[in-house]
Amino acid sequence: MARAETPSRERIVAGAADMISRRGLNGTSIRDLAKHARAPLGSTYHYFPEGKQQLATEAVRYADTMVTRILRKELDAGPVAGLHAFLALWREIVVASDFRAGCPVLAVSVEEPPAEDAAPPALLAAAEAFDHWEQLLTDALRAHGAAPDRASGLATLVVASVEGAIAMCRAKRDTEPLDRVAQQLEALIVGALDRSA
Amino acid sequence: MARAETPSRERIVAGAADMISRRGLNGTSIRDLAKHARAPLGSTYHYFPEGKQQLATEAVRYADTMVTRILRKELDAGPVAGLHAFLALWREIVVASDFRAGCPVLAVSVEEPPAEDAAPPALLAAAEAFDHWEQLLTDALRAHGAAPDRASGLATLVVASVEGAIAMCRAKRDTEPLDRVAQQLEALIVGALDRSA
Repeated sequence: MARAETPSRERIVAGAADMISRRGLNGTSIRDLAKHARAPLGSTYHYFPEGKQQLATEAVRYADTMVTRILRKELDAGPVAGLHAFLALWREIVVASDFRAGCPVLAVSVEEPPAEDAAPPALLAAAEAFDHWEQLLTDALRAHGAAPDRASGLATLVVASVEGAIAMCRAKRDTEPLDRVAQQLEALIVGALDRSA
Repeated sequence: MARAETPSRERIVAGAADMISRRGLNGTSIRDLAKHARAPLGSTYHYFPEGKQQLATEAVRYADTMVTRILRKELDAGPVAGLHAFLALWREIVVASDFRAGCPVLAVSVEEPPAEDAAPPALLAAAEAFDHWEQLLTDALRAHGAAPDRASGLATLVVASVEGAIAMCRAKRDTEPLDRVAQQLEALIVGALDRSA
């Protein structure tokens, strides 16, 4: 019975990913993250003894894995299907949260790390997430006939513009930026595949 | 003499814009913002009696005005020149800060506002900034021959992808995302103008 009340490690990580995407990392304490996941602070420290940076790093990896899994699956049907899935995922998060949640990977990327030589692990995890998504898109574009250089440039443009559009939608309280970007990117991908056919 | 030590209102606003772009808004107090601008807290409250939200709103407007002025000037020579100036501005900020500073408008956009019905003024200012930049780019694209629909979609893609690429550069500690996006966007703009010529 006590067991049923013990939050799973994954639920805490998923809650942290959501909260970081809403409020950023610097303004959020591990206490806030635990509370948001309805987890006792004790369990949270039990799972994440190194504290907030450790939990934030896992939250970023959680978002990375979620997106990577969707991309891998949907890109099987081609780059346009992968693009649609990538866009639909973020659009759903933005709309369902009434424009209050977004991408935790972006959130971590735009906050200066503590003044140390080495980048903190959460930032490294964010860089890796972007790399993974770009690589999956690049591979799919190439596999479907896009020229190698064009494929990598276009993959970066997809990730960058969708991430930027999420932020613009939140500021404007409107899905128009994501919808416009969707239209532009789809035309570009179709063009890149056609041209090399 | 005491006068010479009094920080100008604009210096405090510029300092706040820089700090918000580095650390986000939620994790930054008005005390932090005053300290970053080397301004006494008293002067800061004197200029911004409503506190942090007021200063943050002015910081976002400051960034908006800076970018708008550059875009207006450089777009006179055409959309490609405007794109180059927009990209060069952000690239310089990211590189000069060793990947620690970015765009304060983006920073404010990705932090959930306090739970109130109305959006806070800093978020409204962020939405307006994006609108201004998109409109200037749209007008220039149309004036140089792009089809009206294509112009507005492309303008949104430019702003979204540059904002997203700034965040990616910071995570990766590398300018490659901005450089790749620059190449893609330039080709797109040239194509949009050619096609309608």
